[in-house]
Amino acid sequence: MRVSTTPSAGIDLTGEAIFQAHLGGKLEIGLTAPLEDRRDLSIAYTPGVAEVSRAIHRDPAVAYTHTWASRLVAVVSDGTAVLGLGNIGAGASLPVMEGKSALFKRFAGLNSIPLVLETTDVDEIVETIVRLRSSFGAVNLEDIAAPRCFEIETRLIEALNMPVTHDDQHGTAVVVLAALTNAATVIGRELAALRVVISGAGAAGIAVTDILLAAGVPDVTLVDSRGIIHPDRGDLTGIKATYAARTNPRGVTGGYENALDGANVFIGVSSGTVPEEALARMSKDAVVFALSNPDPEVHPDVARRFAAVVATGRSDFPNQINNVLAFPGIFRGALDARATKITPAMKIAAAHAIATIAAEDLTCEHIVPSPLDERVAPAVAAAVMQASSPGR
Amino acid sequence: MRVSTTPSAGIDLTGEAIFQAHLGGKLEIGLTAPLEDRRDLSIAYTPGVAEVSRAIHRDPAVAYTHTWASRLVAVVSDGTAVLGLGNIGAGASLPVMEGKSALFKRFAGLNSIPLVLETTDVDEIVETIVRLRSSFGAVNLEDIAAPRCFEIETRLIEALNMPVTHDDQHGTAVVVLAALTNAATVIGRELAALRVVISGAGAAGIAVTDILLAAGVPDVTLVDSRGIIHPDRGDLTGIKATYAARTNPRGVTGGYENALDGANVFIGVSSGTVPEEALARMSKDAVVFALSNPDPEVHPDVARRFAAVVATGRSDFPNQINNVLAFPGIFRGALDARATKITPAMKIAAAHAIATIAAEDLTCEHIVPSPLDERVAPAVAAAVMQASSPGR
Repeated sequence: MRVSTTPSAGIDLTGEAIFQAHLGGKLEIGLTAPLEDRRDLSIAYTPGVAEVSRAIHRDPAVAYTHTWASRLVAVVSDGTAVLGLGNIGAGASLPVMEGKSALFKRFAGLNSIPLVLETTDVDEIVETIVRLRSSFGAVNLEDIAAPRCFEIETRLIEALNMPVTHDDQHGTAVVVLAALTNAATVIGRELAALRVVISGAGAAGIAVTDILLAAGVPDVTLVDSRGIIHPDRGDLTGIKATYAARTNPRGVTGGYENALDGANVFIGVSSGTVPEEALARMSKDAVVFALSNPDPEVHPDVARRFAAVVATGRSDFPNQINNVLAFPGIFRGALDARATKITPAMKIAAAHAIATIAAEDLTCEHIVPSPLDERVAPAVAAAVMQASSPGR
Repeated sequence: MRVSTTPSAGIDLTGEAIFQAHLGGKLEIGLTAPLEDRRDLSIAYTPGVAEVSRAIHRDPAVAYTHTWASRLVAVVSDGTAVLGLGNIGAGASLPVMEGKSALFKRFAGLNSIPLVLETTDVDEIVETIVRLRSSFGAVNLEDIAAPRCFEIETRLIEALNMPVTHDDQHGTAVVVLAALTNAATVIGRELAALRVVISGAGAAGIAVTDILLAAGVPDVTLVDSRGIIHPDRGDLTGIKATYAARTNPRGVTGGYENALDGANVFIGVSSGTVPEEALARMSKDAVVFALSNPDPEVHPDVARRFAAVVATGRSDFPNQINNVLAFPGIFRGALDARATKITPAMKIAAAHAIATIAAEDLTCEHIVPSPLDERVAPAVAAAVMQASSPGR
């Protein structure tokens, strides 16, 4: 069968090929030391291993250098917001988490294990991961629905002395900033001169807002399914109320037509659609990132009629905004630096590193590197490591 | 430095060699499918992976064949009874758990991940593992102190629809039964004709008692640090009170001298010592398994003065009783059979498979195979799989 909803131009992606490649799963455990004779066994297991356990008991820092856990990334999900599939549960999220772990290894050389949770309760998720904290050295939260994802991430960052980040928020935000940095160059504008409209106030929308504000974009307006986020809206609670105060500096109200009137940039992370008439009201040389997958908010061929630069999340159009450009290098850099937090400065440094690689060959159809570009993860890791230095 | 407390005859086991071999840990993640081009990426990750997630959401059985989790063994510990080191904590237990995972891979080809818990609360341990149940397909509990280990194992067996076993109990018990089966042949007795004394009523002592009773040894007497377990003792609570009723059929009271008077078999799993005068009272052609590590309950050279067959847990004397003979094959067989429980019949079958391999070349100094014997795990797996068949 052909996968009708997930086209990839030029790629013969049949269900048979996909299921065949997933047989038995995508990960395996390997041994880093031989286990061939009595001496090997006496070193890796009893009696020799007792020496290492004893040393860690005396000095917990020995665990950092003499176990795999300190550099192991736990890919954690509750299966509530898996790709575009929604709340399909922990078990069904596993192939995605295995894929994530495979990408950590492939692009950043990091070991990683999927841990999926049969609970959606915030307290239970947090306490489960906290109890397991000696088993790994970093946490990549994945496909957890908003607004729970915000509280889970915040509480784990506070509770754990290790890098923790929710990739659907910050991986997306980093690659969007990288792409927008280069798109701004293509259209000849500074980030500080951009008016940006973000469609979707979920995990990605909030994180993109944060990183754009931190990177110096002054005019960001969020739009959710009920219209522009504005302090006068009576239906806003929680994090949306907070962002009503932090965004929309010109106090625009209404829907897409008002939001996009004169805007330079549209960023869709909504699973919705945006009307053509609204896009037609954007400024000259506009930028449209229609990132919903598999169905962008506007088809890129249509978007090109209104925008000078168009990006999607898909591999079959130019400018694919793909988190794999960010997360392997971010975790590698944070772990190499022995950082205990992933800071805004580290995320912005990651975005700049990604943008710099694509900028070597910058066109309106090449604002981000290919997801397979081997240079990206090491460059991101180096930038993140430097940005994590004390004093930054 | 030399590891003075953990001698291994003929093996140059220095601290430097041990720590060098543990640098960075002993495990790594490998990829089972290529990730080299856009097609690979589209299969292992988006958009292709969504097809597999969707299929699992429709039919959870697809997770069994198309993720690594269904055959993944979680090696779980709270670090409360690590080797002979005691309660050294979760972090310090990690090298042992990594070693266990390495042995699962090396001898049974099973993937396995260590999960160590920063809690010793029974409820918390159980609920943590239950919440993670979709992440793995079997649970090997390890180095959890008695009596909590009994309740944790019982509750997890009940809560999880997968093989769960506490190796310190049942791995030890299986290898002891294998060794005792062959020792009985060496001394020319039936198992049903043996009087057995077990020193230590902890995790291993209770499990060895269970398997010997199940295998038809009628006369088992347990001795703890206060003497023979007997219903008239006023200090027995919990599981020891239960076993006072199940063991000691002749109602013996007192200490080792009474317990061992005329006994055929001494099995030490106590971390204590046994007096020579008591051993001297055992029957002709006695069997002594002094399994405490690194210091046996009686030195094997001394034991040989009173016994026809002597075994220890150490690699530098003949007849090493080592759990690695049991657990890789037991889990492999249970997973191959898609068994949801590890039953007494499966454990006894595992013991017989181990005994059969050593019996090909049976002497008083060769009652168990070498821990490195490649034939053992496949033979155990086959026997366990057969014993798990419906109708057994």
